[in-house]
Amino acid sequence: MTTQPNQAGPAGGLQRAAKDHLWMHFTDMGAYADADVPVITSGDGVYVRDADGRRYLDGLSGLFVSQVGHGRTEIADAIADQARELAYFPLWTYAHPRAIELADRLAGLAPGDLNRVFLTTSGSEAVESAWKLARQYFKSVGQPTRHKVISRQTAYHGTSLGALSITGVQAIKTPFEPLVPSTIQVPNTNIYRAPVHGDDPEAFGRWAADQIEEAILQNDPETIAAVYVEPVQNSGGCFPPPPGYFQRVREICDRYGVLMVSDEVICAFGRLGTYFGAQKYGYLPDMITFAKGATSGYVPLGGVIARDGLMEPFLNGAGAFAHGITFGGHPVAAAAALANLDLFERDGLLDNVQRNAATFRATLERLHDLPIVGDIRGDGYFYGIELVKNKETKETFTDEEAKRLLNGFLSPALLEAGLVCRADDRGDPVVQLAPPLTCGPEHFEEMERILRGVLTAAWDRV
Amino acid sequence: MTTQPNQAGPAGGLQRAAKDHLWMHFTDMGAYADADVPVITSGDGVYVRDADGRRYLDGLSGLFVSQVGHGRTEIADAIADQARELAYFPLWTYAHPRAIELADRLAGLAPGDLNRVFLTTSGSEAVESAWKLARQYFKSVGQPTRHKVISRQTAYHGTSLGALSITGVQAIKTPFEPLVPSTIQVPNTNIYRAPVHGDDPEAFGRWAADQIEEAILQNDPETIAAVYVEPVQNSGGCFPPPPGYFQRVREICDRYGVLMVSDEVICAFGRLGTYFGAQKYGYLPDMITFAKGATSGYVPLGGVIARDGLMEPFLNGAGAFAHGITFGGHPVAAAAALANLDLFERDGLLDNVQRNAATFRATLERLHDLPIVGDIRGDGYFYGIELVKNKETKETFTDEEAKRLLNGFLSPALLEAGLVCRADDRGDPVVQLAPPLTCGPEHFEEMERILRGVLTAAWDRV
Repeated sequence: MTTQPNQAGPAGGLQRAAKDHLWMHFTDMGAYADADVPVITSGDGVYVRDADGRRYLDGLSGLFVSQVGHGRTEIADAIADQARELAYFPLWTYAHPRAIELADRLAGLAPGDLNRVFLTTSGSEAVESAWKLARQYFKSVGQPTRHKVISRQTAYHGTSLGALSITGVQAIKTPFEPLVPSTIQVPNTNIYRAPVHGDDPEAFGRWAADQIEEAILQNDPETIAAVYVEPVQNSGGCFPPPPGYFQRVREICDRYGVLMVSDEVICAFGRLGTYFGAQKYGYLPDMITFAKGATSGYVPLGGVIARDGLMEPFLNGAGAFAHGITFGGHPVAAAAALANLDLFERDGLLDNVQRNAATFRATLERLHDLPIVGDIRGDGYFYGIELVKNKETKETFTDEEAKRLLNGFLSPALLEAGLVCRADDRGDPVVQLAPPLTCGPEHFEEMERILRGVLTAAWDRV
Repeated sequence: MTTQPNQAGPAGGLQRAAKDHLWMHFTDMGAYADADVPVITSGDGVYVRDADGRRYLDGLSGLFVSQVGHGRTEIADAIADQARELAYFPLWTYAHPRAIELADRLAGLAPGDLNRVFLTTSGSEAVESAWKLARQYFKSVGQPTRHKVISRQTAYHGTSLGALSITGVQAIKTPFEPLVPSTIQVPNTNIYRAPVHGDDPEAFGRWAADQIEEAILQNDPETIAAVYVEPVQNSGGCFPPPPGYFQRVREICDRYGVLMVSDEVICAFGRLGTYFGAQKYGYLPDMITFAKGATSGYVPLGGVIARDGLMEPFLNGAGAFAHGITFGGHPVAAAAALANLDLFERDGLLDNVQRNAATFRATLERLHDLPIVGDIRGDGYFYGIELVKNKETKETFTDEEAKRLLNGFLSPALLEAGLVCRADDRGDPVVQLAPPLTCGPEHFEEMERILRGVLTAAWDRV
């Protein structure tokens, strides 16, 4: 059966087609044997609608993506104009105006001497490109043994095999091993479950950063190429850095000649109220990786912003960075990114986040009165709510209970109640929120109300 | 300096910005210290223009991408409509109409029972996804030791670390090793330089296929997950299959329970006159990977089409394929693909290729009278011209000579003469052509005329 483009057709036809032909991502397709696939059909501002016309508050910006919200005609117009003018040309040997303008603009927004922009189509490709750049860079400067990467436990850095190797979520690695060798995981900054210094954020931050130094020493400093850190770690449920953490990580990287990669696929472009997360926490990495919010997801785009020094050997005889991506820096994607950044400026989106972040936090923190809520953590417009069986002891759920609670009840119940968010068990069970940057107090109230109802019902089922 | 979106600004400003901030792909950035970066600004049909207003015949479809040609307003309109309606939503847990319709339509176009469509944003991600699927599939059906991939020498399968591991071009692997272990390369189907049976295509095809069997046996059949083959191998300069080759590869895969992956990132969507290359050569793989031409490059999109059987364990208790890509099956990209397929149908593009393919070949074959032309090979709208130092002995150029000839002379001279094509030395030196599917005899004549002039001048410099 073939349906017509741009005509959804009868919902039954779409359901049949989805079940017969669409392999959904990270999705148990067996679950749809007797149930409908949820089909989202349109979006407007911070709300989306499904095929039955029901409306949902998009509390996750799609997937940490839709910073400016849905249905922005300015971006739609910009991408159509660009598609008419030059829809595609590669960045291999040639360049085109939109990629140049975007590189120029991103270099202007990025901190310090992060001035060299390598464009990709996705976050995974950005993470891979940064690793490849680190490896070839070190081979070019006479340190060919530096190839390993250190990252943090439970951190998610992507799913292509290189990015997956850096990822610290073992459950999504096991089915695909063996991976790229020589990645090492160290503890993250989850102070709620800190093994030491849980009552002293500064001491905990020193300890957590020192775990990186220990891993560098244990694996031979001469073999370590890079350390990957997210400003606020997503997977596990939004772990912000303890005070001083990133400054100490930077010092450690400098001490051992290791590159510091700030993986900002989620945290860049206003998620924390700044263009880049590194700016929020005052550190200067050697590379920033980005994607998602760069175009607010209107067209796929990602990239790496590298310090000038990383290009130096390539300008002086080392030849080409032997890496390329057909759709990297795609003209239409670059046009979307430029139009997106225009909206950031015109609508003062960073200001909006900065102005409302404390209210968002305070509104969510009201949920602390619920017995199932163990921890509420995050920053800017990016929060995780950890669910526990016992608030006092912090006892968590068994895997079986977590699966039943999250997949069996919370995910469908939250959607049913009108909220798109994420119930995740990559670490301990959490509900995550990352709404569009256009949200204000009325949307925080709506999120809190829905969460209160559903989490209360969840507790009754525990 | 920040330039405005959709305004190229003064060319000098663009040049400065490009050199200071844009890290181009597979490009020696040092070469632009004293030279301008070529900037392509617009496209119309089979021609593109640069910042100085000069026009070029796009003999490479950008990068094997622009099947329907440049400036197609139908696709521009479709993507703008979709961006207004729903620019982004993930395929994680939810679905949206355009991805469903595209999956449905691709399943209808693909051969046999290739009915399950996993959408990505790029060819590399498609290649990675197929490998990941093979690995988890085998773990799900009690064959956990099957994880290796066999591919062919000089074959290019992408640049993310997993795809790069499958790639058979060592020069672009060395800077980034160690890669994913357990990939094996076997001889390709370059009959021009066949070590045996160079005068007997059928015998050569049997021999080449049998190299795969030998590799399977040598590496333990129980450990081999998949064999990756392009219908016509791109890298090395367009190697078509000898008669019977793919049938024998299919038999060998069946004999040892190995999955056959047809990597059609270049060859699908009309490049050979059929929707899929497997159809052109009459074989049925277990998976097809695609990207590039699926949207004619108007928006980045790729994917894997898998046989129904590969989803079976996931429908029956194995849980989710533990893989996902934020922008995979992107609504705007899916809308571009649907509009692109509409143009294929409306304009009869497959017919156009089938009708003109023999003329394209015959026109190019006129170049055989040039002393530098050693071989002209390919199929459909996809050709490679191998350059040699001695036509009789097939003696090729040294690495130094090839670099001087291709990078130093041919690439700039062909562009100067008005032709975008590819002078490549991943194997022996070749010039490659892959024009938009809308091309006709007048464009073949133009290509031949330009190539004749530049290749004649090249020979004078040898």
